[in-house]
Amino acid sequence: MSSPIDPTTDHYQREDDVLERIAKIVAPDAVARGEVYGGDDAAVLRPFAGQAVVSTDVAVWGVHLDRDLFSLTDLGYKAVGAALSDLAAVGARPRGLVVAVTAPAGTDLDALHRGIAEAAALTGCPVVGGDLSSGREVCVAVTVFGECPSRGAVLRSGARPGDELLVTGPLGRAAAGLRRRRAGAELADELVEAHRHPWPLIAEGIAARGARVHAMMDLSDGLGLDLHRMADASRVGFVLDEIPVADGATGDEARGGGEDYELLMATDNSARLRLIFEDRGLRAPLRLGTVVADPAVRTAGGEPFPPYGFEHRL
Amino acid sequence: MSSPIDPTTDHYQREDDVLERIAKIVAPDAVARGEVYGGDDAAVLRPFAGQAVVSTDVAVWGVHLDRDLFSLTDLGYKAVGAALSDLAAVGARPRGLVVAVTAPAGTDLDALHRGIAEAAALTGCPVVGGDLSSGREVCVAVTVFGECPSRGAVLRSGARPGDELLVTGPLGRAAAGLRRRRAGAELADELVEAHRHPWPLIAEGIAARGARVHAMMDLSDGLGLDLHRMADASRVGFVLDEIPVADGATGDEARGGGEDYELLMATDNSARLRLIFEDRGLRAPLRLGTVVADPAVRTAGGEPFPPYGFEHRL
Repeated sequence: MSSPIDPTTDHYQREDDVLERIAKIVAPDAVARGEVYGGDDAAVLRPFAGQAVVSTDVAVWGVHLDRDLFSLTDLGYKAVGAALSDLAAVGARPRGLVVAVTAPAGTDLDALHRGIAEAAALTGCPVVGGDLSSGREVCVAVTVFGECPSRGAVLRSGARPGDELLVTGPLGRAAAGLRRRRAGAELADELVEAHRHPWPLIAEGIAARGARVHAMMDLSDGLGLDLHRMADASRVGFVLDEIPVADGATGDEARGGGEDYELLMATDNSARLRLIFEDRGLRAPLRLGTVVADPAVRTAGGEPFPPYGFEHRL
Repeated sequence: MSSPIDPTTDHYQREDDVLERIAKIVAPDAVARGEVYGGDDAAVLRPFAGQAVVSTDVAVWGVHLDRDLFSLTDLGYKAVGAALSDLAAVGARPRGLVVAVTAPAGTDLDALHRGIAEAAALTGCPVVGGDLSSGREVCVAVTVFGECPSRGAVLRSGARPGDELLVTGPLGRAAAGLRRRRAGAELADELVEAHRHPWPLIAEGIAARGARVHAMMDLSDGLGLDLHRMADASRVGFVLDEIPVADGATGDEARGGGEDYELLMATDNSARLRLIFEDRGLRAPLRLGTVVADPAVRTAGGEPFPPYGFEHRL
């Protein structure tokens, strides 16, 4: 949908020119044979193998990323990384993404799209289409789609009493990175990097699906909220032994910090899970605790573990 | 991605409660067996038949729809209708859509999502997921995906010299509706309805794909721009005999008015196209003119036909 402008040839050039310049920035190095990206009413992709998986995620400049501490390129990168993490979270293999951007006049759209393109290229997920509109602030809505070629997508609702709970890595890195950046740390600081450039754990998600874990989700809002969401969806409780805290992060950051994008998994065969991860050269999953039948039982280290973390103000 | 809030149970309830209420508004009457909509990290759909087709479209309150003349429900409806038109434009059958919404605190999110739900229900395309964020203005990014079970999606780049150009209906209705609404017409006025509630021509697009038209696109930005886009993509020119003007619209509105969402088609067998449309009970396509080999030849009624219409200010 477009807004009215003066009916002159000049203006006709303008929108299509901007779109063409951006299309060049986000264009993947190669387009798969039989696929059409951008330039038409819709993108056309070869048939998906197995289930199709879709997720959408919106990032707002100044809400999801601090304008004074990070760049528009970081916003684009982060929007794509966070969206792809939702595919990782069910064990899907990405097939493509589309971006819908609104921005005020004068926004450096090239910088924003360079971040989008970088994250897409590094994760091997092509940008196949997009839309652009004027608006009062910079919003980036990223929609990702993928496929689950064998077995089904892994939902958060499948955890069973007796399952072991594991996580793909230590927690609190993104929250610690934001704290450090606010205190003046360089953008290249390792923890600041974790906040700027979230890495979707696609290979880990696919491996966990292959290992037939019962339930999985990504820790986008922090263990303190997301573990409750898994427990609610699965109608179970949990007993955590310990929470693995990342180097440089605090216990609070590990528990309540969002945007780590590590994967939380419930399985009755952690030996198989560890073997498959090792076989594929992936970092060994860390044990968190156990799933219990009583949904009212939610503890960590013997203490109550109430919901705690990051959430939207709506 | 979420923004930080006070770590209290109250706030934990808040976002999930809002999401749950909205999920009920947009929930389809039935969820196909083996599919999962909302509530998890991603939506899971049964395998697509043939090519997968994806498009994204963003609508901004006050940019794409006048806040004083129309409602938030209209915005939601219009965003979905416009997005689905991009599937119609390539002949795809819709399989689902996701919506990413940003809105300031206090926005009537229920009203917005009622419009989204109504358009989704009327077109038979389920809302399978979404995201919600606080922001300074109301933005609705709708991503639609569909399938092309036999033959390929129809692109705008396939028009060939000698093809006949046709359109699914007379033009200018949406622009005339906006003009009438500004002059005080009721929301129920037929032309105002065309502006508020665009109808994606999904059945027509599928029929045209079945009739093997060479090229197709929707007239979202008006014939005056979109016909040039088809000609540019196909590297051809055109000679229009006449432009079919809708009752109540002006010639300028028919030529330059966007948001009609009629389909523009190029075919070497308009008899077959008309027969298939008639057979399916669809309105007979209207002749516009002829495709010619020389890209510099672009005329209507013997006069030059330069680009003219609606476009974004970027």
